[in-house]
Amino acid sequence: MEIPDIVVGRLPIYLRALSHLESIGQTVTSSHEMGNALGISSAQIRKDLSHFGEFGKQGTGYQVKYLVDQLRRILKVGADWDIAIVGAGDLGRALANYNGFADRGFRIRAIFDSDPRRIGQTHGGHVVQDARDIGRVLPELGIRLAMVAVPAAAAQLVADHLVAAGVQGILNYAPINILVPEGVQVQYIDPVVHLQRMTFYLEAPTPNPVTG
Amino acid sequence: MEIPDIVVGRLPIYLRALSHLESIGQTVTSSHEMGNALGISSAQIRKDLSHFGEFGKQGTGYQVKYLVDQLRRILKVGADWDIAIVGAGDLGRALANYNGFADRGFRIRAIFDSDPRRIGQTHGGHVVQDARDIGRVLPELGIRLAMVAVPAAAAQLVADHLVAAGVQGILNYAPINILVPEGVQVQYIDPVVHLQRMTFYLEAPTPNPVTG
Repeated sequence: MEIPDIVVGRLPIYLRALSHLESIGQTVTSSHEMGNALGISSAQIRKDLSHFGEFGKQGTGYQVKYLVDQLRRILKVGADWDIAIVGAGDLGRALANYNGFADRGFRIRAIFDSDPRRIGQTHGGHVVQDARDIGRVLPELGIRLAMVAVPAAAAQLVADHLVAAGVQGILNYAPINILVPEGVQVQYIDPVVHLQRMTFYLEAPTPNPVTG
Repeated sequence: MEIPDIVVGRLPIYLRALSHLESIGQTVTSSHEMGNALGISSAQIRKDLSHFGEFGKQGTGYQVKYLVDQLRRILKVGADWDIAIVGAGDLGRALANYNGFADRGFRIRAIFDSDPRRIGQTHGGHVVQDARDIGRVLPELGIRLAMVAVPAAAAQLVADHLVAAGVQGILNYAPINILVPEGVQVQYIDPVVHLQRMTFYLEAPTPNPVTG
């Protein structure tokens, strides 16, 4: 059964919300409660989850732990995924130090940069390696996911090297679209895209009033 | 005319791609060329843009500059939007130093933290202010957008303070959903959500083989 990609995109959000409920000791929830917390209609949530079988019983709600386990299995985050970071600037360093990966199925294993001043520095316990070694290090470590935090002008070349090294999924923070072969997944994070999506709904800023 | 939110979400991506074409001097493009660059079907692009009028003529393509101007107007990024950052940890600092806002319609105006060790530090030219002053400073500066880069446990309280201070759009980096009154926009950035969306499509990692 083919799951629409837009549904796949919501599953991690459900997993995050349910994991939060689990962490505070809540054992049962409902599509209504989830919907209120997430700003998604309960009908949508029921429909999304129905793609994967009968998780909840009418009138008794969802078992939180069971649903967490199922979503982790579906999203394949049961065993840890190793990730490389390319780019050891402000953002790459923030990612290397981010403590939200470990308990959600991901583990930073390597960080690369092409700037000799950054190579050899340590961030989040990882020594920054020369980006020229991507093609050797990634296959050695079996790394198949990478986060790209380099300037826009360098992102395509970095992506090419990552794909050649066997990477199958790239989370691209550079504000530019990259081309990858079929079968390689790409996701984008660009704060401006999200900000513009919000400003669409807001009243435009007014220029400063002329005083005098 | 009501524009579906999913279409609104793609417009910033079109704007980014078209701005890139403009920056390299290309004056005309087509839905096919844009589709190839973005991994979106040309039919989808034509349909999305048709919500806003007749931008391209059949057979002659789109005028890049005209389309950029129209998208900037539609997304209301003509005049700069002022933004506050809450949270001066690794991520907040990376955002404060990010140089991708200025030329895309946004301007960091203030950064806040509640940690006395961070208050008074300077990042990206902005002195970190006490988060308790959000309610005074934001209205003074007329700031209506904020990026939240605080731990998950603090995000809802920060959001409440921002909304009380008149903020109408929140870009939340904390890995938790937040509740805001109707009319306030929220967008989320969470790398794990994007990573899990990719791992869904990949073969799960195998445990290390037992040697012996």
